Amino acid sequence: MINLNKNKGDGHQPLYEQIYNQIKLDIINGYLSPNERILGTRTLARMLDVSRNTVDRAYLQLTLEGYIESRKNAGFYVLELPKVFYTERKQILFDKRKIDEELLNRENIIYDLTNSSHTSNLFPKKEWKRHYIAALDQLELAEKLSSLQLFQGDIALRKEISRYLERIRGVVCHPRQIIITSGLQQSLDYLCQFLGKSKNVLMEEPSYPKAREIFVKNSWNISTEKVDNKGLDICNFSNEINIDMIYTTPSHQFPLGMIMPISRRQKLLEFAEQNDSFIIEDDYDSELRYYEKPVPALKSIDYPDRVIYLGTFSKILSPSFRMSYIVLPEQFTEDFLERFKMHNSTVNLINQIALANVLSSGDYDRLVRKMNHIFKKRYEAFQNGFDSFKVPIKVSHNVSGQYFLVNFPTKINQYEMIKRALDVGVKVYDTMQFWQEEAECPHEHLFLGFSKIELENIPDCIERLKKAWDIIEIEKS
Amino acid sequence: MINLNKNKGDGHQPLYEQIYNQIKLDIINGYLSPNERILGTRTLARMLDVSRNTVDRAYLQLTLEGYIESRKNAGFYVLELPKVFYTERKQILFDKRKIDEELLNRENIIYDLTNSSHTSNLFPKKEWKRHYIAALDQLELAEKLSSLQLFQGDIALRKEISRYLERIRGVVCHPRQIIITSGLQQSLDYLCQFLGKSKNVLMEEPSYPKAREIFVKNSWNISTEKVDNKGLDICNFSNEINIDMIYTTPSHQFPLGMIMPISRRQKLLEFAEQNDSFIIEDDYDSELRYYEKPVPALKSIDYPDRVIYLGTFSKILSPSFRMSYIVLPEQFTEDFLERFKMHNSTVNLINQIALANVLSSGDYDRLVRKMNHIFKKRYEAFQNGFDSFKVPIKVSHNVSGQYFLVNFPTKINQYEMIKRALDVGVKVYDTMQFWQEEAECPHEHLFLGFSKIELENIPDCIERLKKAWDIIEIEKS
Repeated sequence: MINLNKNKGDGHQPLYEQIYNQIKLDIINGYLSPNERILGTRTLARMLDVSRNTVDRAYLQLTLEGYIESRKNAGFYVLELPKVFYTERKQILFDKRKIDEELLNRENIIYDLTNSSHTSNLFPKKEWKRHYIAALDQLELAEKLSSLQLFQGDIALRKEISRYLERIRGVVCHPRQIIITSGLQQSLDYLCQFLGKSKNVLMEEPSYPKAREIFVKNSWNISTEKVDNKGLDICNFSNEINIDMIYTTPSHQFPLGMIMPISRRQKLLEFAEQNDSFIIEDDYDSELRYYEKPVPALKSIDYPDRVIYLGTFSKILSPSFRMSYIVLPEQFTEDFLERFKMHNSTVNLINQIALANVLSSGDYDRLVRKMNHIFKKRYEAFQNGFDSFKVPIKVSHNVSGQYFLVNFPTKINQYEMIKRALDVGVKVYDTMQFWQEEAECPHEHLFLGFSKIELENIPDCIERLKKAWDIIEIEKS
Repeated sequence: MINLNKNKGDGHQPLYEQIYNQIKLDIINGYLSPNERILGTRTLARMLDVSRNTVDRAYLQLTLEGYIESRKNAGFYVLELPKVFYTERKQILFDKRKIDEELLNRENIIYDLTNSSHTSNLFPKKEWKRHYIAALDQLELAEKLSSLQLFQGDIALRKEISRYLERIRGVVCHPRQIIITSGLQQSLDYLCQFLGKSKNVLMEEPSYPKAREIFVKNSWNISTEKVDNKGLDICNFSNEINIDMIYTTPSHQFPLGMIMPISRRQKLLEFAEQNDSFIIEDDYDSELRYYEKPVPALKSIDYPDRVIYLGTFSKILSPSFRMSYIVLPEQFTEDFLERFKMHNSTVNLINQIALANVLSSGDYDRLVRKMNHIFKKRYEAFQNGFDSFKVPIKVSHNVSGQYFLVNFPTKINQYEMIKRALDVGVKVYDTMQFWQEEAECPHEHLFLGFSKIELENIPDCIERLKKAWDIIEIEKS
């Protein structure tokens, strides 16, 4: 029996849908049996006092979905459904009450000294809005936007990046060597996939754990070489296995902060050439040098064509921006593009065009200068603040970017110090996370970022840390 | 000898940079030898008639980069560089003259009957611009934007997707089960990585080659099962190996276009439950059904919690938009999130918030209706046009989405027909590309998309195809 609600109020279901739903439920619940003939459309339409079209539409939908079938000159029949349909839904393992992660992890943090978030005033909203709207209104965009784009990303952005790299990083490359990606991890993932499975990568110790994650994911074997105060020295590396790839941060070692000198850079290139290895230069924040001019990239002296350069826009625009790029060595650019020709780009096109506009307008250079200015002041506020501690805490030198290490004069329990800071509302970070061999990690360090704290809050933050950490001085005496 | 250009005209290099560059070149070129003492900063400043600060800055940069070092109370000395520095750059394999791909492939195409691009008027520029600007101005965005976001994507968008899926596709899921991705291939890639290496996937024959590419990339073994006129029938599948995953397009088989009836859907779920397999439901265009209402998703009856649902925004917004999503089964949602907790999202946050606004405002539903209206008219224009051919060419029925197959009454050479069409300026596509076993591919088909051709151009396009293809009628007679 079909009951129709013919009121056209809120939530009113179209008549054909009501008919469709009720017959469907009758079939599922077994009130209509397999091979049973159901009422003809003319008859049902008359019974329900609706147009025949309405019933036709309901029957068509039921036919399409396989609940009934039309038999030639004989009307509509119910089809057989597998018994399994009545099986009870299995116990739900997923806890629906579980709150989304966004709402969890809300510790009582007043200042988060992370390096992976920014204070909200740093995003260049005005500039971005202007260039984004300009991009939307660009005539040629309409055509591009409606097409599936090239895997390597838009040519306008790749051209601007190549100009930028030549100007700022000393890197000369053709736009064809550039691949636009959605972040460092994706860049690394493409490279691992291109170079093959179970290869051997050499990482600096310590290094960036999110890079390590991608090597692990691709089943690469990881060797490590401890850095000294000049970064990685490839001459110290003596491993029997052949190294296919070296992952390094020559212009600002992550997380220790030193610059690799020119002689070591040359030895690294020599090693790569002799051992048929490639070097991944992760140049994650080298525009951010606020005392000197940026150190030229390793890629700028890459005579053996062995360096894969990775850049990002996260540090200047925003961490949630998700735009990065790879500069490929010339020697495998064509093979790389061929390898991924069946892959779609993962980067939104309008963003690429807008970013190209940001670069070509000179706004990007202005943003870099602004960021350097802001970060310099924040860094100096921290440095001055730590000078006033009873405990002689030293802030790591050679600072650039958005973080530094604090060096305690004595062995500390990192987790204990982190907990103490958290008790006064300040979140600081351990350095263990950066070591492959945790036992190798010096205990005197903590990792502090200053991208998410406003200049005017730094004195208060320092006061809190002072309260939290001066205790070790008392304990010592 | 250092020559300074002190004119402050265009392209003027700062003085310290000129000093830095000239000393650096002298070291590289061997005019200054290792361990040679260079002029003191005071002396050089006097000689060049510049401030001592300027020289200090140049020397600091040279020191930082490892060209010189300061020795205690003894001034600055040139450091030794490895000999390899003078090696000639290897022959450049990369052909700089090679034009970017964008400029290549410009065949003489008047109408491109692809399904992966749109006519440029289809992008809802006005609506997108409004919601994008609103997103930028949303107060809470500033905070989110400056933080590294969650791997799974923003909660606002995930909530809107879960509402949309319930309303339009009958899928009930928690926002926690949703992962925002940059496209179908990335969705598949995450899933392959989560489920492990060298698993066995069953694909429909024919199927989507860009999906196949991801399985191949992850070293998965691919089995195929030929679809019949009701899509995949899992009961026909008899393979000795255990199937871990089934990739299917139940609501609109790609590329043949049929709908899998309810009885086969149930059998598929039963199979997955009994064999401990998962089903990937690629629901790529099921909103686009312009004669009937959309068929409910397989996921909507997923009682054994075995279906991984994949959706995309490419078909309604634009192919270059790069936003898609996964709905995970409840049973492995937590493990999946744990597995990727060290991974960053690849999707730009502002776009996510703007898209959430498009969905919540009702504009998305309006866009779907608009697209259905436009595509319906285009499809009917093609259907009517083909009816006028001498050769009885049939357009595949059950049409929805943005493409159809044309069925010739006789065996054709696909490449020959494509070439003939191209000769009159129309690009059509073969169906071989969709078959794993090319020999299995029927020869009577061609693949035509109508997302990139305007309604008013369809009659002219048909006339051209008529000219190109009517020949086979003549050849037959």
